[in-house]
Amino acid sequence: MFDRATYISRRTALTERLGHGLVLLPGNAESPMNYADNCYPFRQDSTFLYYCGLDQPDLAAVLDLDAGTATVYCDELTIDHVVWMGDLPTIAERAAAVGVDRTRPLADLAADLAGRQVHYLPPYRAETVLWLGELLGRTPPAVHDGASLDLVRGVVDQRAVKEPAEIVEIERAVTTAVAMHTTAIRMARPGLVEAEIAAEVERIAAAAGGRLSFPVIATIHGEILHNHDHGNTLTAGGLFLLDAGAETAGGYCSDLSSTCPVSPLFDDRQRTIYDLQVASQEAAVATLGPGVPNRDVHFAAARVIFDGLKDLGVFKGDTDEALAAGAHAMVFPCGVGHMMGLDVHDMENLGEEWVGYDGKAKSTQFGLKSLRLARELEPGFVLTVEPGIYFIPQLMDLWHERGHCAEFIDFDELDKWRDWGGVRNEEDFLITADGARRLGPAKPVTADEIEELRAGGGA
Amino acid sequence: MFDRATYISRRTALTERLGHGLVLLPGNAESPMNYADNCYPFRQDSTFLYYCGLDQPDLAAVLDLDAGTATVYCDELTIDHVVWMGDLPTIAERAAAVGVDRTRPLADLAADLAGRQVHYLPPYRAETVLWLGELLGRTPPAVHDGASLDLVRGVVDQRAVKEPAEIVEIERAVTTAVAMHTTAIRMARPGLVEAEIAAEVERIAAAAGGRLSFPVIATIHGEILHNHDHGNTLTAGGLFLLDAGAETAGGYCSDLSSTCPVSPLFDDRQRTIYDLQVASQEAAVATLGPGVPNRDVHFAAARVIFDGLKDLGVFKGDTDEALAAGAHAMVFPCGVGHMMGLDVHDMENLGEEWVGYDGKAKSTQFGLKSLRLARELEPGFVLTVEPGIYFIPQLMDLWHERGHCAEFIDFDELDKWRDWGGVRNEEDFLITADGARRLGPAKPVTADEIEELRAGGGA
Repeated sequence: MFDRATYISRRTALTERLGHGLVLLPGNAESPMNYADNCYPFRQDSTFLYYCGLDQPDLAAVLDLDAGTATVYCDELTIDHVVWMGDLPTIAERAAAVGVDRTRPLADLAADLAGRQVHYLPPYRAETVLWLGELLGRTPPAVHDGASLDLVRGVVDQRAVKEPAEIVEIERAVTTAVAMHTTAIRMARPGLVEAEIAAEVERIAAAAGGRLSFPVIATIHGEILHNHDHGNTLTAGGLFLLDAGAETAGGYCSDLSSTCPVSPLFDDRQRTIYDLQVASQEAAVATLGPGVPNRDVHFAAARVIFDGLKDLGVFKGDTDEALAAGAHAMVFPCGVGHMMGLDVHDMENLGEEWVGYDGKAKSTQFGLKSLRLARELEPGFVLTVEPGIYFIPQLMDLWHERGHCAEFIDFDELDKWRDWGGVRNEEDFLITADGARRLGPAKPVTADEIEELRAGGGA
Repeated sequence: MFDRATYISRRTALTERLGHGLVLLPGNAESPMNYADNCYPFRQDSTFLYYCGLDQPDLAAVLDLDAGTATVYCDELTIDHVVWMGDLPTIAERAAAVGVDRTRPLADLAADLAGRQVHYLPPYRAETVLWLGELLGRTPPAVHDGASLDLVRGVVDQRAVKEPAEIVEIERAVTTAVAMHTTAIRMARPGLVEAEIAAEVERIAAAAGGRLSFPVIATIHGEILHNHDHGNTLTAGGLFLLDAGAETAGGYCSDLSSTCPVSPLFDDRQRTIYDLQVASQEAAVATLGPGVPNRDVHFAAARVIFDGLKDLGVFKGDTDEALAAGAHAMVFPCGVGHMMGLDVHDMENLGEEWVGYDGKAKSTQFGLKSLRLARELEPGFVLTVEPGIYFIPQLMDLWHERGHCAEFIDFDELDKWRDWGGVRNEEDFLITADGARRLGPAKPVTADEIEELRAGGGA
């Protein structure tokens, strides 16, 4: 939690921008796994955390734009709560710590909203949809339709630019993630099951007092982009890909990816593609800076990947035309990166068109449609850079069969890489006044650095 | 997953018991953390798992009681799914593996339900409430009101009695949990933060290919019953309590508790109360058997605790009268145990009155109202035994102030234990034809066994 002045100034900035009515910020409720009282670890709503800092379930805040007040709604604890959950500070104490001096019971919230214009963000949890429906007397579809675009834009503009204290938190999360990745790279060896590495990675995040920022991807099938299954056994000659980040106790995220050989060294074929990914990453990072559209960062990486595979005979034809046609998406079907902050895909619940596109239209082309962040970068933005090269047999077969982008792809040559797998490296960056700065300590990236770490050297 | 005959026979037994109409079994959806695509690890609904065995989100099954058919509803994967999540078996292949030969797209489900009597279980996730509302054209309150008591009772009767193959799964979960507990007992030492032990405990569950059956309780404040905060540092002379269980990849649970000194040995005051808890546990276990109401098991433990603390001068008066008045709940404010199976509190979503009370009324007395299982035990039931002794300062002060049970409590003597903390041991049992059997391998329980393990001996 930051100091109370931080929360007061964030709320003030938001309310000054909006006009009249009430801003309703519902906190998250507990999220049941298999029955109401067996819940997943509580995760507060990031926007609630940003403006109110309180990390307990069943809270709401109301900012009255006309009266200039802030109120936290919460039920006091009963003796049963105390027996089962321990002695907690009172709501008044908790609210005071974030600069809110008005508290009210939750039971009063619906009446306090009645007859007022209520701005709220689009809900992403079903519990919140039901709660807003009860509070506002609306059906679930009407709850979705009634979300406030003004509020979305105000929150996005504010949260997108990170304060110095937020950067400190994010770098703390990156530091933990670097330990997660160096440990995993050291562990990877034939015979180990993916779950054993994933479990150790999660242990490091939890032992640091926080948690994972998203479920670990720890896989021998790096070509499957969001594979959360961990049942495979690592085999000599294969690759292992880890995509994992930490979340600090304060809720700030990191997000890193690494790829390493399961054997001590990369073989020649592995190194060829691995080096190409590293080159694409370097090209993307070199492009970062204020005023640069992240779409350009994306295409800087795509160009290196396309040209590199053209040298290998997989791609062919004019690079500009091929990139425009989306031919590179055969092996790079996703985006180069995304915003990061209190969410690992920061503010994704507020809509990619505002977070990543500033309201502008998004491409529907396969590959480019998965680019989450295309807008001009600004100082204070924090984002990931994570181009990848993936040989996806099902996609190869589909495009070959349809002749899609056939003028840019030699499918016979491509097929020689069919079983290669996938590679991704990923690091986190802050856009500065004159460029960009990698956040947190360096992790091994080049093939030589990876091999050195696995040989017992390195960080 | 069990063999297809298992699922067919489970469904047959359920449908033969119910009359007419359709049984709708909605599977769980993904559960978002901080935005729609960042989800908690998927947990399937246990009843869906029991009857259909399919562990993927966004499925539903319909059993037609009149036609005698079973149908699984699911959407086929698109190429985008394949790129992001990998190649999965088709719905037809997945359904066939659990003996279902009819599959239909989810989009057809609402029409297939229209005009029929639909039995469904009370929903415990908001996503399911919204989904049922859309499928059945009902408001959220009407969805809750429309749940089928016949279906609840049929499912409870069936799931309460575990099949041999289920016992094998549960013992697998206990074996993992024993490793979690012996590791934690060995780790505990001054200077360690609770989170470091909790993280290692979770690592063991995940590395075994499953997960935790509920969020770990790892605390120096054992007197706070469900404390999920892990920020405290272990200190010499204190106690450490772990309550943690594993869930197998197939979804079956274990649930164990252990308490150990942070220093190498228990001190005399610690051992006095610790030994009393062990004696209460032994008394409870000795009471287990078919035909015995679990209420008797609860009071067997309560009696030992009350009499032991009477010997120490804390309690006084007639034991029977004191137990009837609930005086023991001063230090034992919870129940002796609960059903366990696919849920760690098995079937808690179906309602304690049916799972634990066979439809009979439950006490409202403080303490006894927290007993989750009171009914007569039957062969095949699996349950936990976990009496505890907790010195809860807030509860002491409240009862003292109100004079509650003052004829049975010497509050001055009680106050001498104010800072003692709390102790609980917990093991899992199967009710057999002639008694009960502890499931899984033994873990250290007695004070001597705990000290031996911490000295480097033991399992």
